[in-house]
Amino acid sequence: MKKYQLMAPGPTPVPSNVLLAMAQPMIHHRTPEYEALSVEVRAGLKRLFQTGQEVLPFVCSGTGAMEAAVVNTLSPGDTVIVLRAGKFAERWEEICQAHGVVPVAVSAPFGDTVPAERIAEALRQHPGTKAVLMQQSESSTGVLHDVRGVAAVTRDSGAILIVDAVSSLGIADLRMDEWGVDLVVSGSQKGLMLPPGVGFCALSEKAWGRTKTARLPHYYFDFAAEMKWIARGEPRFTPAVSLMVGLREVLRMIDAEGLDNVLRRHDRLARATRAGVTALGLGVFARATPSPALTAVVAPPTIDSEKILATYSSSHNITIAGGQGEMKGKVFRLGHMGYVADFDVISALAALEQVLDELGHPVELGAALRAVQQVFAERA
Amino acid sequence: MKKYQLMAPGPTPVPSNVLLAMAQPMIHHRTPEYEALSVEVRAGLKRLFQTGQEVLPFVCSGTGAMEAAVVNTLSPGDTVIVLRAGKFAERWEEICQAHGVVPVAVSAPFGDTVPAERIAEALRQHPGTKAVLMQQSESSTGVLHDVRGVAAVTRDSGAILIVDAVSSLGIADLRMDEWGVDLVVSGSQKGLMLPPGVGFCALSEKAWGRTKTARLPHYYFDFAAEMKWIARGEPRFTPAVSLMVGLREVLRMIDAEGLDNVLRRHDRLARATRAGVTALGLGVFARATPSPALTAVVAPPTIDSEKILATYSSSHNITIAGGQGEMKGKVFRLGHMGYVADFDVISALAALEQVLDELGHPVELGAALRAVQQVFAERA
Repeated sequence: MKKYQLMAPGPTPVPSNVLLAMAQPMIHHRTPEYEALSVEVRAGLKRLFQTGQEVLPFVCSGTGAMEAAVVNTLSPGDTVIVLRAGKFAERWEEICQAHGVVPVAVSAPFGDTVPAERIAEALRQHPGTKAVLMQQSESSTGVLHDVRGVAAVTRDSGAILIVDAVSSLGIADLRMDEWGVDLVVSGSQKGLMLPPGVGFCALSEKAWGRTKTARLPHYYFDFAAEMKWIARGEPRFTPAVSLMVGLREVLRMIDAEGLDNVLRRHDRLARATRAGVTALGLGVFARATPSPALTAVVAPPTIDSEKILATYSSSHNITIAGGQGEMKGKVFRLGHMGYVADFDVISALAALEQVLDELGHPVELGAALRAVQQVFAERA
Repeated sequence: MKKYQLMAPGPTPVPSNVLLAMAQPMIHHRTPEYEALSVEVRAGLKRLFQTGQEVLPFVCSGTGAMEAAVVNTLSPGDTVIVLRAGKFAERWEEICQAHGVVPVAVSAPFGDTVPAERIAEALRQHPGTKAVLMQQSESSTGVLHDVRGVAAVTRDSGAILIVDAVSSLGIADLRMDEWGVDLVVSGSQKGLMLPPGVGFCALSEKAWGRTKTARLPHYYFDFAAEMKWIARGEPRFTPAVSLMVGLREVLRMIDAEGLDNVLRRHDRLARATRAGVTALGLGVFARATPSPALTAVVAPPTIDSEKILATYSSSHNITIAGGQGEMKGKVFRLGHMGYVADFDVISALAALEQVLDELGHPVELGAALRAVQQVFAERA
């Protein structure tokens, strides 16, 4: 018996109680029962997004929610600045280009970040900029970008700050209202511990203002129309009912643990993972602040990283992820977000020791685990 | 104890085996396991859509799939003909208008249909028409429109025929290839017996040709990009993994029952429902061919139909649906699609007798049930 373990940077494991809640008989979405669910979920989402604004759920993947953010706040020919230091930043660029919005990239090499000061400089160079688009956690490189710093430099500019928090919501701290983030985009299948299928958008007053003048055509993703229906207490279109039932469960779990504790747990699991990997002589790909959501690890130069994930799967029934684009073959990625706790990280690192040993790489067995245990033994 | 019964025209009940399949631990979508699932699901969808073409799944509700059909095949300023005889036809118009496409309505009063000859005439009057848009089953009125007839008149025109089969796929016969339907749109939560969250689009060669010249901007919904990823054996974006696992189960169920039998079952349940309703002296709202998916019933003139659904819920724990728009208060709608069998219809009609009696409407108790039983006792 090899227990299946999902340790990829999303989708992430779903708690059994949530799976079973979602396996209850289907309910209708225009009933008092669903309205009560919706009221509870909306309140929980506000706490999670750290905002007083409504959080709009859409039936879509994270990419759909990213496009929703663009088409509801921008117009053809608008210039936007994209913080470009990974594959998901390229997705912002592609979405903008598909809609005739002109992205200006402020780039850093993959594994690095762009300091807020460079965004400020770009805003000065392009004074008509309508938005700054960035990731908080860049899943392709394992880097955490400085949302707070970028928010400070966009706050008083004419640009709104749009943050892809798909793989950071409920994982890294993101104080939407306090920091002045204008539009937060997220998804269900990372920190929220749910199956994929629901995307979220939350808007500041400044971003809501932009929806009134934005001229990119849209229908399915329509923030203003969603708000009208929320006021009526009904969803605009048929929601992903079972996922919304699951969402109520996970929001209760997050409230019970406390958001601060949830964020601390992720930080601790990430530090433990990095300590374990480093103890085996491997390098963390992130040169900038590493993400608490996942750790991108540089494979030993003699081993194709695709072989490492294949062996994780074939020998240990554990799914991890490889490198994307130019990082393919060089990097492998361990997720530690959502429904993940200490001994999941222990398992992932124990497996890494075995995988490297099996692939002929010299390993001091137990070295990673000792390093992980030292992090876990720290008393705050 | 009052057993909960969902008898609305979607979402519909989900079989327990499907609920439990979806409650299995989450798997990753870029693995051989998911690829095998995808291969099986693609083959099953082709049989269900009665097409040799690929059926593209998207994470969205039915409305998202409707918009996907429009933005991938049309350009700004295009003229399209909309068969307009219900609320969902109005959605086609709204989507077109949001994107600068000009809808020409060919209308019939709600409860009626538009004969194919009137569409042919409209195509002659508007020779540059790029598409004809229609519903197969119009859920607001309970009418089944004549897709086969409309396909016959669009087939050799310059227009493609786009059919919203959200509430008819796997319920009413829809021979995409044989009839010459160019684009079929559907969703997961009706005939497919799944929770809402996945939309589908299937395209003829003629419709695929249009995707090459269509100029409406789009990114998340991109048919050509999806096809490239299908060729690679991977989904383009994170799919609704748990729903796809459920989809494999329901496609197996449909194959086991046989599509012909599935369609016959729906026809029989619909006839039984109409017989029961008529035996109580109530009228069926559809004056044209009634839909096998649902029956819209005209409430007695002395009773607000909203009271009928409220009593279904409060006294019997059964969810049905009311009238939409101008039909609100006048019509109630009984769904009999998807995971529904004989004795579900018996329950729905037994409840109707009780509801009318409770609301003071004269009822011969058992009259509806006798009529239903007579339909069920027919030997083919």
